[in-house]
This record gives sequence, C-alpha cells and structure tokens, in this order.
Amino acid sequence: MNQATIDRSAAWTRLAEHAEEMRRRHLRELFTDASRGEVFTRQAAGLTLDLSKQRWNGQTLELLLSLAREAGVPEGIRALLSGEHVNVSEDRPALHTALRLPPEASLVVDGEDVVPGVHETLDRMATMVERFHTRQWRGATGRPIHDVVNLGVGGSDLGPLMVTHALADCRPRDAHHVDVHFASTMDGSQLVDYLARFNPETTLFVISSKSFTTIDTLSNARTARDWLLARLVEDGIQGVDEEMVMRQHFIGVSAKPDKMSEWGIAESNQLLFWEWVGGRYSLWGGIGLPIALVIGMAHFRDLLAGAHAMDRHFEQAALGDNLPVLLALAGIWNVNFLDIRAHSILPYDGRLEYFAAYLEQLEMESNGKSATHDGHQVSYSTCPVLWGQLGPNAQHAFYQLLHQGTQPVVCDFIAPLRRYDDVEDAATRDHLKAQHRLTLANCFAQSRLLMLGDDAIDEPGERPGHKRYRGNQPTTTLLLDRLTPATLGALIALYEHKVFVQATIWGINSFDQWGVELGKQIAGETERILAEHRGHEAMDASTRALIEAVWRMEKESDR
Amino acid sequence: MNQATIDRSAAWTRLAEHAEEMRRRHLRELFTDASRGEVFTRQAAGLTLDLSKQRWNGQTLELLLSLAREAGVPEGIRALLSGEHVNVSEDRPALHTALRLPPEASLVVDGEDVVPGVHETLDRMATMVERFHTRQWRGATGRPIHDVVNLGVGGSDLGPLMVTHALADCRPRDAHHVDVHFASTMDGSQLVDYLARFNPETTLFVISSKSFTTIDTLSNARTARDWLLARLVEDGIQGVDEEMVMRQHFIGVSAKPDKMSEWGIAESNQLLFWEWVGGRYSLWGGIGLPIALVIGMAHFRDLLAGAHAMDRHFEQAALGDNLPVLLALAGIWNVNFLDIRAHSILPYDGRLEYFAAYLEQLEMESNGKSATHDGHQVSYSTCPVLWGQLGPNAQHAFYQLLHQGTQPVVCDFIAPLRRYDDVEDAATRDHLKAQHRLTLANCFAQSRLLMLGDDAIDEPGERPGHKRYRGNQPTTTLLLDRLTPATLGALIALYEHKVFVQATIWGINSFDQWGVELGKQIAGETERILAEHRGHEAMDASTRALIEAVWRMEKESDR
Repeated sequence: MNQATIDRSAAWTRLAEHAEEMRRRHLRELFTDASRGEVFTRQAAGLTLDLSKQRWNGQTLELLLSLAREAGVPEGIRALLSGEHVNVSEDRPALHTALRLPPEASLVVDGEDVVPGVHETLDRMATMVERFHTRQWRGATGRPIHDVVNLGVGGSDLGPLMVTHALADCRPRDAHHVDVHFASTMDGSQLVDYLARFNPETTLFVISSKSFTTIDTLSNARTARDWLLARLVEDGIQGVDEEMVMRQHFIGVSAKPDKMSEWGIAESNQLLFWEWVGGRYSLWGGIGLPIALVIGMAHFRDLLAGAHAMDRHFEQAALGDNLPVLLALAGIWNVNFLDIRAHSILPYDGRLEYFAAYLEQLEMESNGKSATHDGHQVSYSTCPVLWGQLGPNAQHAFYQLLHQGTQPVVCDFIAPLRRYDDVEDAATRDHLKAQHRLTLANCFAQSRLLMLGDDAIDEPGERPGHKRYRGNQPTTTLLLDRLTPATLGALIALYEHKVFVQATIWGINSFDQWGVELGKQIAGETERILAEHRGHEAMDASTRALIEAVWRMEKESDR
Repeated sequence: MNQATIDRSAAWTRLAEHAEEMRRRHLRELFTDASRGEVFTRQAAGLTLDLSKQRWNGQTLELLLSLAREAGVPEGIRALLSGEHVNVSEDRPALHTALRLPPEASLVVDGEDVVPGVHETLDRMATMVERFHTRQWRGATGRPIHDVVNLGVGGSDLGPLMVTHALADCRPRDAHHVDVHFASTMDGSQLVDYLARFNPETTLFVISSKSFTTIDTLSNARTARDWLLARLVEDGIQGVDEEMVMRQHFIGVSAKPDKMSEWGIAESNQLLFWEWVGGRYSLWGGIGLPIALVIGMAHFRDLLAGAHAMDRHFEQAALGDNLPVLLALAGIWNVNFLDIRAHSILPYDGRLEYFAAYLEQLEMESNGKSATHDGHQVSYSTCPVLWGQLGPNAQHAFYQLLHQGTQPVVCDFIAPLRRYDDVEDAATRDHLKAQHRLTLANCFAQSRLLMLGDDAIDEPGERPGHKRYRGNQPTTTLLLDRLTPATLGALIALYEHKVFVQATIWGINSFDQWGVELGKQIAGETERILAEHRGHEAMDASTRALIEAVWRMEKESDR
C-alpha cells in the first residue's frame, strides 16, 4: 500500500475508534486482569521486556499488529536485513546489521559479499588494539601511548562514549592501561582541558568522521595537530619530525580514505567503513575503536554477538513475540492514538549515564521527519521528544512533572537484574549489592506509582490537591540479566530496530538526515560575515543585531 | 483575584483570541518589521536577551503584560523578595535571594534579620576553603587532601556540578589544587569508580543533604565511610583511629545539625542552611562548597554578586523591561496559547555542558504541577518538558527533529560573546578564538534557519519533500558578555525568577515537591520485600513478576 496514507488504512481507523474507548480507562482498571504481567512480557537475548504497564489491552495489540502488517513491517524487516536500498533518498542500503554478522556468514549486496570486508576491518582493529595493549604503539619520542582522545561528534562520539562508560569495568586484566577521552564540541572546550593536562609524547588522537569534512571535528583536529607539532617538533626534540608525529599520534576512521590521506593520516592508521553505515549506527565497526581500546577485542566481539542475537530474533520471531516490533508498536500507540508527545529514558544503573543521550540521537535524528518516501508531508505525528537521565537522579529532578505535571509522558525504565558479584572486598561487595537492591526497588516502585497514582498506597481519606497523584502514565520496563557487552549489544540493537519499525509504519526514511544539511551551509556564510566584518546587511533584524553585538564586544576588548 | 481561574480572566481570553490570529502567521512575515531585533531585546547584568524570534508581536506582549498584572506578578515579586510565606503548602518563605544579599543589607523575616546568619555561613565556608587551599586540611595520616567527593543528589548535586564545570578555568592561581568529584547515583556506580582510584589518605567526602535523610546520599556515604575505616583504621595504620577519620575526612552540609552529628559529622565540619532554602535553589550557600573549592571564595562571592544584580533588576525594572518576566511570558505564550509542549536548552559553550540538566530540575521540579494554591486541579498546561544538550553537539543529534519533525519545540540558545582572551600560547589562542567564532556562527545560523525555514537561503525552484524546512520554530537567544562567575550567577538567577513568574501566573507553588514523596515511601516497602523475600503477593501483576525475576536471578547466580 501507499505508505503516505497509513492513517487512512483500515487498521488505523479501527485503532482510532478503539483509542476513544481506551482513553477513558485508567491503567489501574486494566490491572484487574491478574495475568497481565505475563501476557505482555517477552524475553530475548538476555533481555526481558515488560509492556504490561502500557495503556493498552489484548485487543489494542491485535489491532497494532494488523497495522504493522498493513504497513509492510515483515517485508520491511526482510528488506533491511537483506541489504535492499531501504535508504531511498540516498539510494543505498542501511547495513549496520552486516557489521555484526559472524565471519562464516555471507550477505551479497549489490553483487558483492560484504562480510569479508567487515571482518578485515575488525581484524585490522584487533591488530591496532593489540599494539596499544602491549605497549607497542609508541609516540614520536618512543614512549607508549597512555591517553587516546577521540575527536568526533554525533554518531562518531555518542556511541563510543556511551559504551565505553557502560562497560568500563570490562577492561582486560593483563592489558597496558590506555585512558580514552572524548572531545566533541566545536568550541574546543573539552580539548583545551586535555591539552592543558596531557603529555604530548604519550597522547594520540583518533579522528572519527564518516565524511571527513565535519567541521566540528576537523577544527579540534587542527588545534590538536598544531599543539603536538609545536611541542614535539618546533620545540626541537631530538630526532622528532612532522612525519613521525603524524604517523604515531593520529588514527583516522572514515568512509573517505582519500580525505584522510590528504589531511595527513598515514595509510596504515586508517580504519575504513562504508557509505551504507549511517553515522548513528556506526559504533559496530571502526568508529568503535575507542570501545575496543577500553574493553579489548574479545569483549568488543561479544558486543557484536549480542547485537547479532537481537538481529536474528528480529528476523525470526513472530510479530507478536518480536521485541523491537512490540516496543515500536507501544510507541505508535502512545504517539498517534493517545497523543503522548514526550518520551523519557530512565536507566537505573549509573553505567548507563549516556544511554539517554545516545537514544536522543538514534530516535530523533532517525525519525524526526515529516516527509514520506514519496515526498508528501505526513498528517500525523512521528517521533516524540525523547530525553532522559539516570532514573534515581531524575527522581530528584524531574519526576515531579511525571507524577503531578499536566502533560502525559511515556517512560522506559531500564535496569540489570544482577550486579556487583565480582567485587573482591566482601564488605564493599555487600554494601554495593544493597545499593543495587535499593536501586531496583526504586525502579519498580516508580513505575508502579506512575501506573496507580494515589491507589499505590492504602491511606484513609482523600489527599489534599497538592498531594494527589493521578497515575495512568504508561511505562515500559526493560530488564537485562546483567549488564555485559552481549546484553548491551542486544539492548542497542533492540532500539535500532524499534526505530526502523516505527519509520516503516510512518512511511518515513530513518536513514537520511537532510534536516541537518542547510544549517551547515548557513553557518558557513555566517562565519564568513563574522570574520570579514561585512555582509550582514542582508540578514534579518535579529541576526544583524546579534552579529553587531559580537563586533562591539571585539572592539571593547581590543581597546 | 483567585488564581485558580486565571484562564477565565479577561487578559487570558483576549490572548486566546489573539492567538487565533497569530497561529496563522509565520515568523518570517513578522520579520518584515526591521526594528524587530531592537524592540524585543533587553539587557541587564551582563546578559542580552533577544526575544525577537518568538512568534509574537507588540500586541502579544502588551496582552501578556496585562495577564502578568492580572495574575499579580508585581505583588508576587515583592512577596518573594521580602520573605513572605510564598511557599504556601509548607508555610514558609523561599529566600534563595537572601543568600546573595551583600553584608550591609538587612532582611527581616518572621521577626529576624537573616543577613548576618547568611554571612556567618559564608565566612565559615571561607575558612574551610582557605584550609584546603593552603594545604592545611589534612587527612588522618597527615597528608593534605587532594580529592574531594561531593555525595549529594538533585539540588545537592546538579548546581555544584554545573557551576564547577562552567567555571573550571577560574581556579585561583596560587591555591593548592583540590580535585572535586561528584557521586550522586544511589547504585554506587560513580562512587565505586572513585574508591578504586583514590587514595583514602588524601580523600575527603562532603555529604550534602538538606534533610540529611536522602537515602541515595546516605547509602553512598555509608559505603564511603566503611571504605575509609577499613583502609585507615582496620588495616592498622599507626595512630589513626575512627574519630580522626570522621573529623578529617567528612564535611556535612544540611539544614539538620542534629542528624549530621548523629551520623558522625564533627560539629566544626558542619555547614548549615535554612529550611527556607529549597534544594534546587541552594547552590548559593553551603551546598556551593565544592564550587568554592574549585574557584575560590573571591570568585564565589562574584557569583553571588552576579545573581544579586539580577535580583535587583527583577525587583526594580518595569515589567516590560524585566528580563525574568519577559522570559516567563514568552514561555506562557508558547505553552498556553501556541500549545508548544517541549522546550530545548541549547548552550553554545562546552563549559555549560550541565546547564540543561540543571534547568531540567529547576523548571520541571518547580513547576511540573497541577494543583493551585487552593488545591484545585488546573485546566491549562503548566511546565513543558524541558531538555537539552550542548548546541553544536545537538546539531549532530536531535536538530533533525527541530527542523523537520512534526511537533513544535521552543529553543533557548545561550552563548558568550567573547572567549579565550587569556590563553597564553599565541597560536593555540588563535585556533581557539576561531573555534569560538565558528561556534557563534552556528548559534546564530541555527536560530535563523529555525525561524525562516527554506527561505533562509536563496535557491531557485522548489525543494523536494525530504529537503524542506518549514521554519516558524520560536527561539530565544541569550548572550553573555563573557562567561564569568558574575554573569553565570545572573544567568541562573534569571531562570530562577522566570520559573517563579510562571508559577505566579499559573497559580501554583514553585517551592514544594510533593510529587516526589510517595515514591520514596513505596520504594522503601519494595526494598523490604526484595530483601526479605516475601510480601509481594499484594502487588500488581507486573511488579510481582519483576520482583520474581530478581529472585530467580539470585538463585541462578548462587548455584
């Protein structure tokens, strides 16, 4: 069917009617069915997904599954995984799933098996990581590299940042310790802090940019290069020349080898990936180098295996048992039928501190769109606003709004069932295990309270207005057996596929990002005006005044 | 007037009618008035506020000012600043502004001048900071303290975290370097990382909790105490006893001295604050100790002075020239008349990395409410969902949704006009200044594009659907002359007062947080069930299943 008109499909119409009725029902009524917990819970790849606290019932799910079938979700899944050109506007496949295929697999895309190339890159990464971990990668003065700074932004930053933080306790025991850092902001804020603290002799920069034209990253890279050259070459350390600095202190990760070479990255230090890997889906290959430097290559392959397990589940499980499909359908129901426009991501595990930021990009950059594949503007809502924070911290920050604010919000609660088994000191282990239990208790208690409102406790009499909790806020609970490379891989893949299923239903393309192009162009113009002190007359009144304020402050400062 | 019925006031009705018309007008049409940039720009305390890219005109502002007057905003401001009991549900004043009054001021509240007490605490802080900065504060084995870990969450974490990060380059030159760290999550994630890395002999913990009953913080504190005692006392370091550890490695900040003493904080190590300071408004006193440890007491007093300058402006400026009032009215217009339910905070300066997280608490915990002072449920929207990220990074993450998504979002762009003047190395300074200019260019370009959409560039012909930018997204631009302690103080105070003005119009109480109480109670129950392995039968089907999953995993792990 023509996906531009999904809101005129029979399934959509029936859902809209059904929603009329469901909107009048409070979650606490739905829970009179005692089997509900089991009916809406599914497991796969070390994850348990409990969707019973969504504001839906069995009939809702049936209708949503019909909608998924009408929208062509099963065909979409096949098309995605088999390498069809699902990225229509850029006429190419979206093959992040190929990055986690095992070496014995084969996937022929546009006439070529992509799997051997994927594993060549992984082997190349493994060789690099080995050199760091055995103190063989040395700086220009012969000292082993101690600090690696990843220069990248967006997809070249958020994935590695999130995963290295989540799996920081998975460092291989016998490896030389390499500290990995991230500098992403174009204003140099993070970089300038590192430059003030690090020793240039033992610092290496990884420049990550799919296009190798990202100005944020290249600005930081230029500042870093000149810092190294000034300290290692110009200050005249015996026998150190520019070529040595470039060869021993820079690695490049990109889809553009020629651009890397032009910038000065030695060919042996280039990690390549493919045009068919989107930036926000790229942590599974070369962009994941900082991850492998922290957790080692064996754990990195576990991460891939976990994601691959979710890919297989996504491919093979029936729609009604398919975790990504179910998660996607809950979202569609909330956005399009209950008009819930905000979605909060609440991990109850400090290691997942950057998971919400990661998902903000994954979901909003993928599905924050309003044009269908054939160029029509949709007449229904697509991606909601997504934000989050560690759950226990958010309890002390914005849960007030979740419990007593005026707008509905759907929440994802994420927690590991088990933790701290490996802490060596017995007393510390007991303390920490108690802290983990407390955290789980808070996780379960908050979703219960969001569901039931005032009814969550037995109290005689009516509560005064300012103490009333209305409840009826829908939530999802996602449990990991443990937080490991494998379960984290599965968790990320779950959300990747959820995003794709929603895009399929909405008829939009998850894999392009035309909405960020024009800004780059206009920023370039504006930068020229600021630098050249002319040309702002053509601008609107606000921009003109802002530019003049900069110039005025320049004059004052130069006086 | 009865504030519960503000939506039935004459001003509200006129605004609703006026909105009918304004909703049909695109921002680009409004900009045909070339004076618009100036008309909607105001300055105070080193800040420039440009509201010209809001979807309003002169008439809108007039009507909003009438609404403010009808809602009693001028009286509200006076009541707040003079110490009336504006926190109605808890029957007390909200006197964060008193924390930044100069020593010669006087403010009599409930019969007592509060200013002397405020300055006593500041002097006490100054003495403490001095001891750290001169290497006089020593651990139990006689070595100067090097690492200070702040244990606190919510208001006892976000403020100090945000400000120390923003002003990290304001360290006093001659002071002994103290590294300040933050551990907030109840699961121990951050703490366990510090315990693995820090030397107990040179580590001190600041336990910050207004009530000194916050379980997140006290759990971390207990783990930290036992870690210190195990390593310094039980391992038998000559001459070190428990009392020395408690006296030399712990500082407490709270409104409850008895609870601090009970826990074991030496009286000389207690910093007090008052019940009339809300947690999320508390960085200006003892809770700000980590800030003072980083930037020194002189800069800390500059921070207070900047906030005080904004307080004076808030008190004295006419409503139509009053920055907090104008910022609040723009928000009211967006939420209540244009139905914009999401608000993004986008600083274009890496030092403001935590500013959005800080505002999430300030705004959503203060105004995420639906009960008016007299206990009625409001029939209009209050606080929107607020989230953010460093602007340049968000360009690579969720700007796609801002430009091409289906829902309207209002954005605050925040940037310093001038930066990097003090970088010593000339070449690095030039690079960094160019990076700052590039960042400003992006800041101005993005708000321009959000306003104009496709019209922001001259291109022949129509763009295809997926390349179309609709524009018309309202934005605010907030410029700081420079980011200094004083301008940061003014910036925070600006938002504090904005929140209060909005609450006054909505008729809700900004200063309580009843919506977080019940969760604590239910979490306590749930924790007991998890620990005692019984009592879950009374729970709903979902919670029961989640608890059983924990127990099942315990059994498997113990096998």
